[in-house]
Formats: sequence, C-alpha cells, structure tokens
Amino acid sequence: MSSFVVALDVGGTSMKGGLVTRSGEIVRTGRRATPRDRGPDAVIAEIRSFISDLAASGDGTPAGVGLAVPGLVNAETAVYSANIGWRDVPATDLVPLDVPVRLGHDVRTGGLAESVLGAGRELSDFLFLPIGTGIAGTTILRGEPYGGSAGWAGEIGHIPVLPSGERCACGQIGCLETYASASAVARRYSARLGTSPFSEAITPGSSLSETVTPASSLSEAVTPAGQGPVTAERVAALTAAGDPLATEIWGDAVEALSLALATYTLLLDPSAIVLGGGLAEAGPLLTVPLAERLGARLAFRDAPPLRRSALGMSAGMLGAALLGWYAAGVTDAGDTWSVDVLKSPPVA
Amino acid sequence: MSSFVVALDVGGTSMKGGLVTRSGEIVRTGRRATPRDRGPDAVIAEIRSFISDLAASGDGTPAGVGLAVPGLVNAETAVYSANIGWRDVPATDLVPLDVPVRLGHDVRTGGLAESVLGAGRELSDFLFLPIGTGIAGTTILRGEPYGGSAGWAGEIGHIPVLPSGERCACGQIGCLETYASASAVARRYSARLGTSPFSEAITPGSSLSETVTPASSLSEAVTPAGQGPVTAERVAALTAAGDPLATEIWGDAVEALSLALATYTLLLDPSAIVLGGGLAEAGPLLTVPLAERLGARLAFRDAPPLRRSALGMSAGMLGAALLGWYAAGVTDAGDTWSVDVLKSPPVA
Repeated sequence: MSSFVVALDVGGTSMKGGLVTRSGEIVRTGRRATPRDRGPDAVIAEIRSFISDLAASGDGTPAGVGLAVPGLVNAETAVYSANIGWRDVPATDLVPLDVPVRLGHDVRTGGLAESVLGAGRELSDFLFLPIGTGIAGTTILRGEPYGGSAGWAGEIGHIPVLPSGERCACGQIGCLETYASASAVARRYSARLGTSPFSEAITPGSSLSETVTPASSLSEAVTPAGQGPVTAERVAALTAAGDPLATEIWGDAVEALSLALATYTLLLDPSAIVLGGGLAEAGPLLTVPLAERLGARLAFRDAPPLRRSALGMSAGMLGAALLGWYAAGVTDAGDTWSVDVLKSPPVA
Repeated sequence: MSSFVVALDVGGTSMKGGLVTRSGEIVRTGRRATPRDRGPDAVIAEIRSFISDLAASGDGTPAGVGLAVPGLVNAETAVYSANIGWRDVPATDLVPLDVPVRLGHDVRTGGLAESVLGAGRELSDFLFLPIGTGIAGTTILRGEPYGGSAGWAGEIGHIPVLPSGERCACGQIGCLETYASASAVARRYSARLGTSPFSEAITPGSSLSETVTPASSLSEAVTPAGQGPVTAERVAALTAAGDPLATEIWGDAVEALSLALATYTLLLDPSAIVLGGGLAEAGPLLTVPLAERLGARLAFRDAPPLRRSALGMSAGMLGAALLGWYAAGVTDAGDTWSVDVLKSPPVA
C-alpha cells in the first residue's frame, strides 16, 4: 500500500488540499480557489485537477482519496449543494485516479477530525461548532459524527433563537446565524454604524450636530463604510477596548449563542462544546461571557465545558485524510496522530 | 426459560405493571399508586411488593424483570430522581427475585417501545414526544434511544423557546413546558380566567360591569375556579368550539411546540415526530395547526411528518417488558410483537 492519501476540503470560496501519511504527517498542503462562479462543471474540473496534481507530487500512487464537500452528501455521492450548484455527482467523477474514495460532509468531516485527533479525542459525545461566515455544527454521538435521517442534521445556525427577531438570509426568522456568525457580527455592526456620525450613509438633511455622539473614545477610529469592510475581528477588538456599539453587537452574538447552546445541551447532553471558526479566535472575549450566560440559562443542570478547536482551519482537510484512509481500509487512521503536525510549516 | 417477564413503569403518581410473554402478549396488567409522599423507601417497598405479586400471578418464575423509572438511570442503578427522592438504588434492591433485571429511563423506555413495536417501528431516527403533565422527549438515533453523555438528554420541555418569556417552575425562562404541557395549558387558561367576569377571583372592589365580557358564546359554560379544575382537555374542547381565550392559550401551546420542533428538526433531521401523552389526544386540533406552523418556521427544508403514538399510556410498560426480555438474553424481543394486544381488555 502507498504511504499517503490525498485529502481535499472543498469550500465555497477555496479548496484546501494535502497529502497525509498513515502516521498523520502532512507532507504536502496547498490551497486553490473554488471557481464557483463558473458553475458546477468548472468546480468538478478544478477538483480533479487539484487531486491529480497533489497525487503526482507524492511518492507513488495514493492509497485513497478523501473529500469533504458542502451540502447533502453520502460516502459515494455529492448529492446536492446549493452553494456549488451540483446534483448527484458520484465520487468517481471527482477523482481522476483508480483508488478507493470516500466523501464526507464538510462540517461533519471537520468534526470527525476533532473527534479522532483534536479537541474531542477522548470524548464520545460532544458538539463541534465552527463559527465562521455561516454556522453549522457537528453532533458527535457515541464517537461518530451524526448526519440525521437524511443527511440534513447539524443546522444549528438556523434554529430560531429569537422567534420574533430579525429575518435571516435563509428566509427564516431569528436564526442563530443572523446574530452570531462572523459575517453577522460585521454586518450588524456596519448597519448600526450607518446611523453614526462617522458614516457616509447619513440621511440627507441630517447634520452631524443632530446625531448623538457615541460615548466611546474608540469610535473615531472606526473605518467609515467607504474605507474598507468591517470584520468580526475588528468588532471583537473594539469590544475589548470598550466601544459601546461593538459591545452591544458582540453581546447579541453571545446571547444568541448562549440560547442555542442551552437548547443543544438540554436536548443532547454533550460532555463538551468545541468552538471553532473565525469567531472562536476571539478566545476569552467570546468564551468567558458565553460560559457565564449559558450557565445562567440552565437551572437544573450544569453547562458542559467550552473548548477551543485544536485543528483550526485544518480540521476539514485532516478529516478528509481520515476518510481517505478509511476508504483504503485503514480503520484506525488518526487514533495515534499528533496535533503537533499543525505546528510544522507547510511544505508545498 | 419461563414464558413471561415482569414489566413495571414507575411514574411519580402511579405505577403500571404487567406480565408480558415472549410473543408480546400482555397476560396480566395492573396499576398501583406510587407512595411518593411517604418517601423513597416506601416507594421501593411498594415496587418490590408489586413485582412480587405480579410474578406470583404468573405461571412459574419470570425470565426477567424490566423497570422504567424517572430521573437519571443506567441499566443497573436508579441513580437519582428529584421526583421520587432516591439516590443510587441498585436494581437488585428494587426486585425481590433472583432473576435478570434491567432498568431504563421512563421516557426513553416508552420511546424504545414506540421504536421497536409502535409508531416508529420502521424508522431508525425519530423523536418521541409525550406531552403530559411535563414534557420530555426520546431521541431515537440509529434505532436506539439516546441518553446523552451522562443520561440527561431529552429535556426538550426545558429548551428556551421564548427567551424573554414566562418563568418556568424549573427556574429557567421561556421553557417549552411552561406553554405547551397539558398542565401549562390548563394553568394558563385558569390564570386568565381569573380576570374574567365569571371567576371567583375578582379583585375586591371591582364589579362585573367594569370588566370586559368575553365575546365567546361558550364563556358562560366555563367552570369558575371553585367548581372544579380546568383541564387541558376542556381547553381543547373550548378551542374546538371557538372560545377566544381557549383559542389563544391553545395557540400559544402550538406556537411553542412549533418552535421546539423546528429547532429539533434543524439539529437532528428526524424522519418523523411521534406525539404522545394527554395533549396528543386532541388529534387534529393539535396536529393540523402544529404541522402548518412547523412548516412555516422552516424555509430551506421540509418538516418531518407528525405521527400519533401507537402505544399510548402503555408505551412505558411495554418498553419495560422489552428491557426485561433483553435482561433475559432475548435480544430480538418485540420485533414481531403486534400492537393489537393493546385492544384486548386488561385481564387483571
């Protein structure tokens, strides 16, 4: 058997690929853009090309290929993705090699990696919650990611945390994602800035003297809409510095998360909640108030501990590597892998 | 091996017991009060006595004993019940016979029975939701009831459906149970009646002419507080007859349930939701608006179908019988049992 598998984590914006050995060494890694705007066939062609190039860079034929893809998926077929626009693409169409292949759902594949070799490696029942542009979770049950009756489980980003709240882009009302995703935090802050004296979007006829000056000493440092996008990272920094508007928007995100996690805890009794994605980069600014509010929402049971993801943005690719090894018949792949590989610099 | 097991479903108010054969025939069934007010030792003594009497009424020694009990429980120990007040009671203390014993959580044992021989018999992933005095659910995952990391899963009755809503008896805010349990429906209707012209709880100094007369033609038929308790069944009947206050209270329950079930569906993607308990007796008065509101809450996926429990109030006892057979080593118990046994009259 060959000494490596090809692993590919296909996102809506970019694809992260790698060659991973049976002992968990990442011998190659790279990233390419996902040509989503050119349609599903272009994405499939780019996936094939990327896999082919990765395989050629290794020492021999890969033992298997693992792919994490968005949308509805089973081990053999990418069934549907609204994001990419494909329907019923067999794994063999995505892989230009005659080797075993296994597909997985993008978020659940990341959860698999956190479960096998990451923050949940000694846990059998937990929630993996990456908070990025969107929010979806992986429910790990009895040691395995759970996909539901038809593969649609884990849509925690769209549970109605505020039933009379804001309308989400998905069409529902008061979804977690509409308050707590990294993009929601940036969007909601920007929208409120639109009514601040520093915004270019001042209502015609109003003058600066008619608007209330924010009490924050940091507010003059906020970039107006025309000078670049507001990011969740910037809102987090402003919150840490005491800016009142940022603090309010950040607090809304924490409150929405505390409601969703209270609900999850009461329904599924996880032993821990593993937070990942961009918003978790805020560290204690997120976890300290979140743990406090989650605890306050629960009257008759303790809150599960909050943990940080161990694998970060590599979780999906490493999970895809596990799938590649599983496809090759190596069922214990990952059990002895060290997370330390992440600290080594990329070699390709 | 003997031809029957002893099954006992221990509730906070009463215990339902039975003798059930390997082919699923209920050859004895009976009910006794749970002497909860006399403390946990009295409850344990009554359980032992009931099991002893049931066993003696059978033909020989039972093959095993199964018990469904409330609170935190594993197969060998009743770990904790706030309701009954016991802690760490080994199964062998509950059973005065030298036969194999297995314990189960009361709601999950009912869910097990619905899964193996009831409304979910052909489903591997569904929610069993009995709505009675309280609300707790059984999550059936991959064919088995799921208890969570430590046995506390299924507390859907206490998820915060209205985060700024009414305080629940549990101490939390806006729990499903506080709007949608059978007792909540009765309680909330009674509380509002307290401000109606027909209530005995009129504020001193007010007169009937100062209060608004309800527009409903049925409102004169409502029993004042002194003439007997309002039940959820009565609120349902008044709703069916068009009473505005009952319709509002019933609508709140349906709305709260629709939020909880939308959340459950998005998180766990069940293939069906099986409704049981007293409130499900209302039939289409509950299921028609609930299905409609659940569907309206979900924008990007279909709602799972709602089903009625097949086993009704016998689910817990039949699930306990399955546990008794499992304890005896009969792992396929129930797979061929017919629900038709429920139609036969009790023989003891």
